Amino acid sequence: MSIEAIAFIGGTGRQGLGLALRFAAAGAPVVIGSRVAERAVAAAETVRTAVPGASVRGSENAEAVARSKRLVLTFPFGGLASFLATGRAALAGKLVIDVIVPLAVRNGFFELAPVDGAASAGELIQQTVPAARVVSAFKNHSAETLQDIAAPLEGDVLLCGNDAGARAEVAALVGLLPGLRAVDAGGIANARYLEAITALLLNLNRRHKARASIAILGLPKP
Amino acid sequence: MSIEAIAFIGGTGRQGLGLALRFAAAGAPVVIGSRVAERAVAAAETVRTAVPGASVRGSENAEAVARSKRLVLTFPFGGLASFLATGRAALAGKLVIDVIVPLAVRNGFFELAPVDGAASAGELIQQTVPAARVVSAFKNHSAETLQDIAAPLEGDVLLCGNDAGARAEVAALVGLLPGLRAVDAGGIANARYLEAITALLLNLNRRHKARASIAILGLPKP
Repeated sequence: MSIEAIAFIGGTGRQGLGLALRFAAAGAPVVIGSRVAERAVAAAETVRTAVPGASVRGSENAEAVARSKRLVLTFPFGGLASFLATGRAALAGKLVIDVIVPLAVRNGFFELAPVDGAASAGELIQQTVPAARVVSAFKNHSAETLQDIAAPLEGDVLLCGNDAGARAEVAALVGLLPGLRAVDAGGIANARYLEAITALLLNLNRRHKARASIAILGLPKP
Repeated sequence: MSIEAIAFIGGTGRQGLGLALRFAAAGAPVVIGSRVAERAVAAAETVRTAVPGASVRGSENAEAVARSKRLVLTFPFGGLASFLATGRAALAGKLVIDVIVPLAVRNGFFELAPVDGAASAGELIQQTVPAARVVSAFKNHSAETLQDIAAPLEGDVLLCGNDAGARAEVAALVGLLPGLRAVDAGGIANARYLEAITALLLNLNRRHKARASIAILGLPKP
């Protein structure tokens, strides 16, 4: 595994910051991207404080995209259309890890919001940027747990994408994080199910006052 | 727990027969329903052979519905509309356990088929028969494993429905089956996510040559 930096686009949010913290703690160089450079720099400082010796820097999203070959999209679904409209050319050929889930809350019930033109955020990204190597992953772990860096992680990271090599790269990244197992879920069309699980877990979390994750039982040993 | 019989409507199919076998093996009286009485009787004989001493009988679906207070709907989604059109009045007031998943296969990919007028089979049933106590459950266990009665079961049975008492009844039924844990997933609107998990598991099974099930991690002990 190279130690090329992993750039978290929209990495000042809870999910992005949580993942950046975990990867920094695992020794991976990370870049925090934000629409506002000052916020990116502040978040990088947060990571550096939590993980002494971390290799981390903050930069404006567009610069982080331009300079990184491994991107993790961690901003809210509401920002996806404009991100793709302005940034799609810069994604071509890159590993694009999609952590986005189109969520809405109605009367306390978490539900998937419809995605215009696709069955999931992951599929929308891949359709919009055919030359990107999109892998949906990390959709089913609580942002709170990720940020709570003393809390052990557990469960499976389901990942899907149309490029088997890209899936293997993401599986190797998952392997950097103690407690997590990567599960290859095949093509990007499965992203809709990963996103459905997010909504279910949020409803379970609310009902059971938990930070649930999932495990797939019955798979053969790798 | 009373030992009132559990009637499996469409119980000659793989999922229904598998569940009937497991409940019969757990000592519960079961009824196998089929559109064709002779097939129901033959399936009951199959259960009796696999589970010596089982309390099991076969009957035509309509009779099984009329005579039972606990029904498990285990026929394919394609039969749901006509079942509800003719049988809805007989479901009022009853515990209706919905195991149906609207599935389609396209180019080897399992996907959810759209449900006319609802976001899931479970929601369609509850909407169509407001007086039934509908609980979606058992959607995420392989029919093959259920039928393979020597194989241990494992994983969680997510269940959802709008009637908390009905959910508790189903949780108690799950408790009869060694190796399984019931997880209360709240209202019936979550049925769409249980059904999504079925499609995901079928895709995982195909890819990994497995009979996968799921577990929810991080829930508080009951």
